[in-house]
Amino acid sequence: MAARAVHGSVEPFARAIMTTDTFPKWSGRTVEHAGRACTVVGCAKGAGMIHPNMATMIAVIMTDAPLAPAELDGHLRAAVDRSFHRISIDGDTSTNDAVFALASGAAPAPARGFPADALRTAFAAVARDLALMIVRDGEGYERGIHVRVSGAPSDADALVVAKTIASSLLVRCAVTGGDPNWGRILAAAGRSGVRIDVDDLQLSVGGVALFERGAPADTPLAAREAAFRAPMVTVDLRIGQGPGTDEFISCGLTKAYVELNADYTT
Amino acid sequence: MAARAVHGSVEPFARAIMTTDTFPKWSGRTVEHAGRACTVVGCAKGAGMIHPNMATMIAVIMTDAPLAPAELDGHLRAAVDRSFHRISIDGDTSTNDAVFALASGAAPAPARGFPADALRTAFAAVARDLALMIVRDGEGYERGIHVRVSGAPSDADALVVAKTIASSLLVRCAVTGGDPNWGRILAAAGRSGVRIDVDDLQLSVGGVALFERGAPADTPLAAREAAFRAPMVTVDLRIGQGPGTDEFISCGLTKAYVELNADYTT
Repeated sequence: MAARAVHGSVEPFARAIMTTDTFPKWSGRTVEHAGRACTVVGCAKGAGMIHPNMATMIAVIMTDAPLAPAELDGHLRAAVDRSFHRISIDGDTSTNDAVFALASGAAPAPARGFPADALRTAFAAVARDLALMIVRDGEGYERGIHVRVSGAPSDADALVVAKTIASSLLVRCAVTGGDPNWGRILAAAGRSGVRIDVDDLQLSVGGVALFERGAPADTPLAAREAAFRAPMVTVDLRIGQGPGTDEFISCGLTKAYVELNADYTT
Repeated sequence: MAARAVHGSVEPFARAIMTTDTFPKWSGRTVEHAGRACTVVGCAKGAGMIHPNMATMIAVIMTDAPLAPAELDGHLRAAVDRSFHRISIDGDTSTNDAVFALASGAAPAPARGFPADALRTAFAAVARDLALMIVRDGEGYERGIHVRVSGAPSDADALVVAKTIASSLLVRCAVTGGDPNWGRILAAAGRSGVRIDVDDLQLSVGGVALFERGAPADTPLAAREAAFRAPMVTVDLRIGQGPGTDEFISCGLTKAYVELNADYTT
């Protein structure tokens, strides 16, 4: 019983309520169980002042599954925590942002209901799709950054490191410039306050090793440059032998971003 | 007995050791007491990756006052805390930064030595001059931001608010654009995590009121714009009735900054 993408069926609905957004953002998944099906769909508008705790943004996630308010709230919070709270464009949080969840109960349910884990997975997938689309729609966007940290003492530590790297202006400038600058990534990790074991440090970008066993990796420059010029620059950093992992998503800092936000007048 | 500026006497020395810096940074003060005088002088090189805990930067502060190592260390730490630890350009801390203090003891001292408070003031003034020059020499620098926060529950809270405002990308873009955007300043204060009493909120920039008693101030637009176009945009924010005050200094985020750091290749 896997969640299935249903973008097609959401498109007309999303278009109808987001006629003013130049980059409509929508996503959906279907959950099938015991011969019955329900759908989780979502749409969002954005995107300025994007940082955890959300932004100048409204997102709505809807399902026809019959869900009690507490269940719906649980699915929403879990989904938001791993999606909208894992992205940053400005480093600034807006004051008027919100993600809503609605459940109509219109879908005929199996005798014992739709399985909670499948619904949670569908909510998480829809929320993540929307969050990624919001980054993609960020002001002056040219290229994304996806930082995944592992080996941290705890998940919370991994998040601090991932967020520090993804929010670093120098890392974000290097991504814009397509420059395989591992020094800026490790410097950001180092100032995050989380303990780093240099002997265990492993850094790769787009699967290309940049730093391992305490020294720069012997990877051809062309491969390193190609990794930094991907539409989404994927940074994988192992900082020790701990169990903690987490991730954070941002984008390159561009001249167009500065121009848009410097020339904007209130 | 006031500290007296001695920039002139430091210049040849600073020039001699900073021949490669395009923007030499030096400062000095003289302390006079009981017919004797000593001098505190400093110079610095910079400036990239500037953020508290210092940066790609070396500064040296020297005095001919006779000082025991512990005294010198105390003056240095107090001075650095209020200067180099109150500036940010990148939000990124470099790994190879340092401020040194040296005391030669060559100055003939009064019978009971030079007064500690006068030396502390001189060290603080020299360190602050150097820190401001480092901001002024920041990559792509066009205009500075000096944020002073008062009325906070504690000094530590005031620092958090001041640093959050001065580091906000949107505030920094508004400063570059010369846009009197009080909303971005208050939004940054609001997300800092420190308690804000809206009734006590008072915001002025360059002495021009922007927000007071819970509402935007009725100041002419021309005056507000002029305040945001000063070489140093001075933000004064009162957030409550507490005793806490602190400050933070940064600069506008510019397209030139992004260009310099995106095009730089390792």
